[in-house]
Amino acid sequence: MSDLFIRRVTALGHGRCDVLIQDGRIARIGSLAAPPDVEVLDGAGQVLLPGFVDAHSHLDKSLLGRPWYRREPSRDLQRMLADERDLRRSPDWDYEQQIGTNVDVLIASGVTHTRAFVDVDTDAGLRGLEAMLAIKHRYADALTIHVVAFAQSGVSGRPGTAELLDQALANGADCIGGIDPCLVERDPVAHLDLVFGLAQRHGSAVDIHLHEPGPLGAFSASLIIERTRATGLGGKVVISHPDFLGGIPAGQASALIEQLVDAGVAVTTNVSAGDPKPPLREMLAAGLAVGAGCDGERDSWAPFNRSDMLLKTNQLAWRHGLGTDDELELALRVATTGGAAVMGVTDHGLAPGCRADLVLVPGEVVVEPVVAVPAERTVVKGGAIVSRPGSAILRTPNGEQPRQG
Amino acid sequence: MSDLFIRRVTALGHGRCDVLIQDGRIARIGSLAAPPDVEVLDGAGQVLLPGFVDAHSHLDKSLLGRPWYRREPSRDLQRMLADERDLRRSPDWDYEQQIGTNVDVLIASGVTHTRAFVDVDTDAGLRGLEAMLAIKHRYADALTIHVVAFAQSGVSGRPGTAELLDQALANGADCIGGIDPCLVERDPVAHLDLVFGLAQRHGSAVDIHLHEPGPLGAFSASLIIERTRATGLGGKVVISHPDFLGGIPAGQASALIEQLVDAGVAVTTNVSAGDPKPPLREMLAAGLAVGAGCDGERDSWAPFNRSDMLLKTNQLAWRHGLGTDDELELALRVATTGGAAVMGVTDHGLAPGCRADLVLVPGEVVVEPVVAVPAERTVVKGGAIVSRPGSAILRTPNGEQPRQG
Repeated sequence: MSDLFIRRVTALGHGRCDVLIQDGRIARIGSLAAPPDVEVLDGAGQVLLPGFVDAHSHLDKSLLGRPWYRREPSRDLQRMLADERDLRRSPDWDYEQQIGTNVDVLIASGVTHTRAFVDVDTDAGLRGLEAMLAIKHRYADALTIHVVAFAQSGVSGRPGTAELLDQALANGADCIGGIDPCLVERDPVAHLDLVFGLAQRHGSAVDIHLHEPGPLGAFSASLIIERTRATGLGGKVVISHPDFLGGIPAGQASALIEQLVDAGVAVTTNVSAGDPKPPLREMLAAGLAVGAGCDGERDSWAPFNRSDMLLKTNQLAWRHGLGTDDELELALRVATTGGAAVMGVTDHGLAPGCRADLVLVPGEVVVEPVVAVPAERTVVKGGAIVSRPGSAILRTPNGEQPRQG
Repeated sequence: MSDLFIRRVTALGHGRCDVLIQDGRIARIGSLAAPPDVEVLDGAGQVLLPGFVDAHSHLDKSLLGRPWYRREPSRDLQRMLADERDLRRSPDWDYEQQIGTNVDVLIASGVTHTRAFVDVDTDAGLRGLEAMLAIKHRYADALTIHVVAFAQSGVSGRPGTAELLDQALANGADCIGGIDPCLVERDPVAHLDLVFGLAQRHGSAVDIHLHEPGPLGAFSASLIIERTRATGLGGKVVISHPDFLGGIPAGQASALIEQLVDAGVAVTTNVSAGDPKPPLREMLAAGLAVGAGCDGERDSWAPFNRSDMLLKTNQLAWRHGLGTDDELELALRVATTGGAAVMGVTDHGLAPGCRADLVLVPGEVVVEPVVAVPAERTVVKGGAIVSRPGSAILRTPNGEQPRQG
């Protein structure tokens, strides 16, 4: 836990200011004098934001650093799932290397927290999970990772998966990850009862991938809301990919959004390019907790995701037409404090008392980086500078030798 | 006109190869030995593409280099047009500086050709046009600029505009730019007859901004098709923003696409994030000439455009779900040879005889740059290297002193 003084920076919600960090937390924000003997970071020409929160990542799927993966046409869901499981069985597959490579990219881009899904299935067993937990601990000083034991290949069709998920949560996963209860599992009540039951037994959070369109997604969401209420898990339940809210009549969507808020169910978007898109403005106006995530960078599914939450903020704003300065700021909040709320992180933000998990990016006003997406980022975690522009992580976890990128 | 040898590059449509450039044109592509005394560019780890074609730019609108422009909510079209005209009347507005700044960015990003709209109205008169023509000539060795005299503020409501457009074409504009014949002009026949009449008189091309949705846009398009046929201007007429093709029933869209192809009307998309999107795959499959453009970077309208056609290619592929390797390659073709076809440039591409207007980007396979959007670009124009990674233009137009960025 470190001390740091950030001088003359333009901070989200504060304008031009100085920031004093003591013992790894923000002590004061305002027009300040630097105390003696504290490291000073010059913030001139820089914008200060809370660290980005990648509330939906698939670090175990990244093919970064491996040879180019050629994506062929006409692959159906089951084929894509099988292709992905096959990749992980190749003799040269190294979970820790793949996860670590993606983590390095995430940190350098300014991400200080991620909710990381990791596939648990009867092929992979707990190998991905154990690697993810190892990385979580190794990088703890640079990146907060909440690990989700994720039933990517489904539970109902693959006997033994439920037991593996149970074991994953016992071994240290923070969250149980469900999947399309109707379209993949084909028995929504059985799947959701299993997921919520595991969450109750282990005191874990719940995060459910919901790719089901329109009315079908809304139906599954209503079952999730019921179970959230019944189990008292409000505040710990997330629906990932709330695109279905754009595929039902506006009045129904409004009512469902109200129920999500009331039940304490949050949502995380990966900013799909597909239609329809969820009614983001209305979701935010209704007080729904909304986070955003980078999803899987360079995975076998699709080539477009990048592990860069500033780019994701740009895409979120662009896709949802958030073009005024106030709206661009709203997009920044989704990508930072919004994601923190989704993950249940309560001390993230630019206020005294918050952990000093921060990112600095070149910009004249706070929203300019959303437009320009500059590559230069200075990343602060717990008050220590963990990445500077043009370099990989400077202070590797647990005080290991610094690496230069 | 220069000679150059590009060694061991991965070229679009050719795979790994060497490229010999003589007298500013591609002489040979294959497994070649470098001739003596020719400049050699090492293409290892690089992808070679035809230079990007920004088939729809608004260089005169860019606020790059000026103080941040705050965008406020709830501005209607007329207010935004007035705001923009007011900006240009501010005492510190310098057309050549704004256009030149944007041109520098375009060239460094790998763009070798652009169709540049410039507003002609009764406030700006021909000041923007004259500045654009000056820049066109000054940068002729680094960037091919086709200038469009554009009726941004409309003609029908601003007497004197038609005469200015006529004068602009007489002064050297390459193309006449019309605007929403129904929604802005409110007299589609009068507007289109004026536009096509000017084109006939001056032998110029036609490029019409068509923001009209669905059936209304389809109606205006049908009038454009009629006039293209009647005037014999097929091959020289473009509709910019063909989003209306996504807002009519699929059968009607197919029929209209066929008519566009048959009449020789091309389209240019700026890749809107709005719904609905035009049926890009079908448009390409039908043989419609489709280009893409960056639109206005950092203008007073919206904050999202960037003068980077590689980023635009990424957005085009992402927005239209072009995720397989073959589809990513298709997106690259839209952004390069597609735009050249739209602009009527017939010698652009990676084939012997084509002008050596090229860009090199880091990548293992030709489509990887579409995914990774690396900032490093090496740009070749007429066989000469005009920009290298990390630097601004190396050889400024007309042999002026090189500048380093």
